[in-house]
Amino acid sequence: MIITMKKTATQKDLDSIISMIESKGLHVNMISGTSYNVFGVVGDTTILDMKTIEANNKVESVMRVSEPYKKVNRLFHPEDTIVDVNGIKIGGKEKIVVIGGPCSVEGQEQISRIAKEVKEAGADMLRGGAYKPRTSPYAFQGLGFAGIMNLEQAKKETGMPIVSEIMSVDKIDEFVEHVDILQVGARNMQNFDLLKALGKTNKPILLKRGLSNTIEEWLMSAEYIMAGGNPNVILCERGIRTFEKYTRNTLDLSVIPIIKKKTHLPIIIDPSHATGDWELVEAMSLAAIAAGADGLIIEVHDHPECAWSDGAQSLKPKRFKELIEKGRVIANVVGRSM
Amino acid sequence: MIITMKKTATQKDLDSIISMIESKGLHVNMISGTSYNVFGVVGDTTILDMKTIEANNKVESVMRVSEPYKKVNRLFHPEDTIVDVNGIKIGGKEKIVVIGGPCSVEGQEQISRIAKEVKEAGADMLRGGAYKPRTSPYAFQGLGFAGIMNLEQAKKETGMPIVSEIMSVDKIDEFVEHVDILQVGARNMQNFDLLKALGKTNKPILLKRGLSNTIEEWLMSAEYIMAGGNPNVILCERGIRTFEKYTRNTLDLSVIPIIKKKTHLPIIIDPSHATGDWELVEAMSLAAIAAGADGLIIEVHDHPECAWSDGAQSLKPKRFKELIEKGRVIANVVGRSM
Amino acid sequence: MIITMKKTATQKDLDSIISMIESKGLHVNMISGTSYNVFGVVGDTTILDMKTIEANNKVESVMRVSEPYKKVNRLFHPEDTIVDVNGIKIGGKEKIVVIGGPCSVEGQEQISRIAKEVKEAGADMLRGGAYKPRTSPYAFQGLGFAGIMNLEQAKKETGMPIVSEIMSVDKIDEFVEHVDILQVGARNMQNFDLLKALGKTNKPILLKRGLSNTIEEWLMSAEYIMAGGNPNVILCERGIRTFEKYTRNTLDLSVIPIIKKKTHLPIIIDPSHATGDWELVEAMSLAAIAAGADGLIIEVHDHPECAWSDGAQSLKPKRFKELIEKGRVIANVVGRSM
Amino acid sequence: MIITMKKTATQKDLDSIISMIESKGLHVNMISGTSYNVFGVVGDTTILDMKTIEANNKVESVMRVSEPYKKVNRLFHPEDTIVDVNGIKIGGKEKIVVIGGPCSVEGQEQISRIAKEVKEAGADMLRGGAYKPRTSPYAFQGLGFAGIMNLEQAKKETGMPIVSEIMSVDKIDEFVEHVDILQVGARNMQNFDLLKALGKTNKPILLKRGLSNTIEEWLMSAEYIMAGGNPNVILCERGIRTFEKYTRNTLDLSVIPIIKKKTHLPIIIDPSHATGDWELVEAMSLAAIAAGADGLIIEVHDHPECAWSDGAQSLKPKRFKELIEKGRVIANVVGRSM
Repeated sequence: MIITMKKTATQKDLDSIISMIESKGLHVNMISGTSYNVFGVVGDTTILDMKTIEANNKVESVMRVSEPYKKVNRLFHPEDTIVDVNGIKIGGKEKIVVIGGPCSVEGQEQISRIAKEVKEAGADMLRGGAYKPRTSPYAFQGLGFAGIMNLEQAKKETGMPIVSEIMSVDKIDEFVEHVDILQVGARNMQNFDLLKALGKTNKPILLKRGLSNTIEEWLMSAEYIMAGGNPNVILCERGIRTFEKYTRNTLDLSVIPIIKKKTHLPIIIDPSHATGDWELVEAMSLAAIAAGADGLIIEVHDHPECAWSDGAQSLKPKRFKELIEKGRVIANVVGRSM
Repeated sequence: MIITMKKTATQKDLDSIISMIESKGLHVNMISGTSYNVFGVVGDTTILDMKTIEANNKVESVMRVSEPYKKVNRLFHPEDTIVDVNGIKIGGKEKIVVIGGPCSVEGQEQISRIAKEVKEAGADMLRGGAYKPRTSPYAFQGLGFAGIMNLEQAKKETGMPIVSEIMSVDKIDEFVEHVDILQVGARNMQNFDLLKALGKTNKPILLKRGLSNTIEEWLMSAEYIMAGGNPNVILCERGIRTFEKYTRNTLDLSVIPIIKKKTHLPIIIDPSHATGDWELVEAMSLAAIAAGADGLIIEVHDHPECAWSDGAQSLKPKRFKELIEKGRVIANVVGRSM
Repeated sequence: MIITMKKTATQKDLDSIISMIESKGLHVNMISGTSYNVFGVVGDTTILDMKTIEANNKVESVMRVSEPYKKVNRLFHPEDTIVDVNGIKIGGKEKIVVIGGPCSVEGQEQISRIAKEVKEAGADMLRGGAYKPRTSPYAFQGLGFAGIMNLEQAKKETGMPIVSEIMSVDKIDEFVEHVDILQVGARNMQNFDLLKALGKTNKPILLKRGLSNTIEEWLMSAEYIMAGGNPNVILCERGIRTFEKYTRNTLDLSVIPIIKKKTHLPIIIDPSHATGDWELVEAMSLAAIAAGADGLIIEVHDHPECAWSDGAQSLKPKRFKELIEKGRVIANVVGRSM
Repeated sequence: MIITMKKTATQKDLDSIISMIESKGLHVNMISGTSYNVFGVVGDTTILDMKTIEANNKVESVMRVSEPYKKVNRLFHPEDTIVDVNGIKIGGKEKIVVIGGPCSVEGQEQISRIAKEVKEAGADMLRGGAYKPRTSPYAFQGLGFAGIMNLEQAKKETGMPIVSEIMSVDKIDEFVEHVDILQVGARNMQNFDLLKALGKTNKPILLKRGLSNTIEEWLMSAEYIMAGGNPNVILCERGIRTFEKYTRNTLDLSVIPIIKKKTHLPIIIDPSHATGDWELVEAMSLAAIAAGADGLIIEVHDHPECAWSDGAQSLKPKRFKELIEKGRVIANVVGRSM
């Protein structure tokens, strides 16, 4: 950590900061510049609160040098984490995993029918929302537990593991029992109580990036889960909020090589929510594979114009199948299977 | 609602959309343009899902004309909502309410001491965090229930109502019993389960704007609370996330006249979290008063450099008092007291 | 164009708007809704100024249905534009063009040496900056005309066409004579005087997207060039400014399918400026090819740590060659050569 | 400047960086941390290019401690700059200057009529656009030199200095002769050729912040003008581009105290372009005065619904007068006149 002191800081001011830091078992080096004096703090600086140090009115600025995350940091854990979901492995350098299914579970018949179609198209897992975070209180809020039961039945029929979004702590037991991958949605990425509770399970967690969260904040949320004892974290980029409104969000594919460099966790891409437009999903999926993603999660519906939510971004099963076929060729080029 | 059809849409395509909409009890008018055909949908369009209509591949775009919120809409509720907090009124055209206190409750002695100082300085209410949403799992997470007890004791000593952040549904009973204004933090603005649960209480709710949420999304979250039956919503702007990093966030003061125009709810400003820098708090507070804010919520700490969180943005009691004195003069100019 | 009138608008207010619009030769249809009255305007609405109509205080909002651009619009020009640069074709469905070279021309020896290396690696064209837009007045501003001469000599030696940035109208004659593709940088994307002047040449123009410009604004800038009579416009995405600071900018690859859908112009990608980090360039280049880009423009320097500008984002020739080799395989998969 | 070296850097790597820096006359201090080695560079680091140093693949990151601007820096020039415009002083602690007028000059009669109205309302100076930067090539581009002549006549009639936007270097002589304050628009804030040319004049320059430029970039553009020899720079905030679309841009009033702290230059606010909505202009103007702005530039038109551009954001003269009257009371409260 680098602390820059104002020129007006007296020796007493400097000493006061130094003794505060040293009292925490850290070591301080000082560099005298022309306009400022600078402290370099050596040791485990994750225990220091930057904002409190900045509160000293003789401090100009505080900058971190080391990352504030430890368990997700590749520096301390060089080999790739591979998350095992009922025998399907996410992460590593082999298979690219494809998760398909509707935005919302609409009933047993619908989810069983679509499950078969996505399996036939080549998907590895089934997604479907039972509890839906909706901007409007007047919009369809999901089938709830009945939806989870419908997913479980579809799993029995197809053998595919199921992925569904969990929105609150009081549903954890239900999800641990019935769902294979627990998804934390973008709006809950910093619902820390939920993250802590998920850290105490050993279930695979699909942690979506918040729509306005930095990569560092995202990794800190993963750190919450890992710090609780659960190493099975899968990161998922689903677009960030920018000034551009042509797409619903802006898909940030550069996170793929960044996440690979900074962490050992697998990273998958959700082109459906990122773009909000099915016409863009195939191009972004192929791009994600080329850039090194470990998986894709894609919305598929056989009657998008009748879907109860998010029809505009859903692919029909036929197009989904074509996407997988094209994707496989690119996967092979980058040395992986799909 | 305006639906623009692609030029390639056939009469059959047009008829299919029309019959879908009319089946929901709405009426359709059609305008034939040079490049597109346009439908105007008349009736209560909040029941239509824009995304599902866009899923039709003959639809070019869908645009709302009416706002999707009803209960918070000034159109249907012209007079100002005034939230009564133990006799102190927030909203309307009279008093501007000032809430002061530390970021975190650090113990009984600290909160009681600061409570007396902020009261002496002229504050109306006391703020303090007992449950803290922290980016890092390794940072101080708040004193929890003990902190709530400390706040209640400080309330007894000073007579000031207390404001504290609630982070999860399972703490609602505790907050309803002990806290006067329940704050929903920026990270939980779209924690819809929490909003629904708060809608079933009749407690004043301070709803902070999410750091990357639009005004419309913010109002939809207020709609969740009101739709549940709780009319006591106070909106709070605390800065939005932008490309500019000199300040922690960018305080968007233009929301004050916008909120006054669009809704009947009171709006208060949090310059401390918005700027992240105590040196900017006074200027932004005076600006907020001049722009018509109904209140201010400001972090105050007597030893910011020792605060357990967010010291950099805390005012010392002496500066807080000066701020209130300057603010009063501007409040008088805009026809209010403070 | 859709004009929504406030409920408080009287018949006289409505008539006044109608007669204003009809006086311009356009036709108006009216839809009476429950909360608002809505006008649909039929005809060439590009002649109407939205802001002026919104100035009427009985107008709630104004929305465009048709795009405001004509010459760049694929609706009126369905076949792909192919820009011919000394026999090399950019656009269409065949070759993906690769442009490589240093950020700045640093002298004859440097540019000739690097030109040979990028050609050997497989590049089609040479890039190099002679006039440099620098944030700081104290930074290296480019070699100016001498740099252009150095580029021309490198072109003679390698046969590769040259691409360089033009920053002001008074250099147009110089560039038309000596440079093959005139690049308009991100900061000048809305330097309308420059765009107008380039519209009067018939040179290929590489129009970079402004770092905070919408897709529509970008296409309107292309429209300026085409409206002036120059059809040879190549669009270039180079990242947009967002809240995320890990990368210099956020590369928005979804523009590739969007640009292909909305316009007939070729689109190339600049992963070097977008990410600001050479370690991310290869992954983003492969992703761009998979997503359908018509070309890549990449910074290459044989001694990045000694480059006079932007060394951090430059690839060494060896890595650049590897990138092209990998890219070719993906190009083949998507049915193109490289 | 702080340079963080990767843990994998060898002693030879460290020595190579040190000798490069020392060869430029700067001094290096080293701090050995647990995960990284850190260099502190002492001396005038504005001569170092951060990007080139980052190009070294043993360098983890480079951070500046000192600001990269010198002439605009309050550290080296503590007293306020006061720009004298025909006897009217902008900056310092006394008068708040008000500039009013239409977006575009539409002819002699219009500008003379509005000039008298804004003067009567209490304005100090007249604004009007003669050369207009328009997104669309089909929109009104301004009257050009005829507009400048109209402004000069209005100046003769009212005695008010005139402010108009300059878009290109070839108009500098015309503007120096006829215009009192030369405005650089947001889109040209990084048109460095224009900034350099304006630096060679001694005219007051109104430098608008680019809609997506950081405070630091804005100050670097001011540095370009001052480095050329022209000290008469007035900064103008006019809103930044964010995800929020309710307003045209987001007015960032926190820049007022920041600019006052970082620089000695005057800062004025343009609430008309920032909000794009006349209904928000008064509240934002009063807020700006309360926050310490040195002036306001406001669009005024007596028939906004007929204005040739930007009618939606123009105040009528009567409302403009009311705004000035309210503003004066707040100006007095903050110890200034208006």
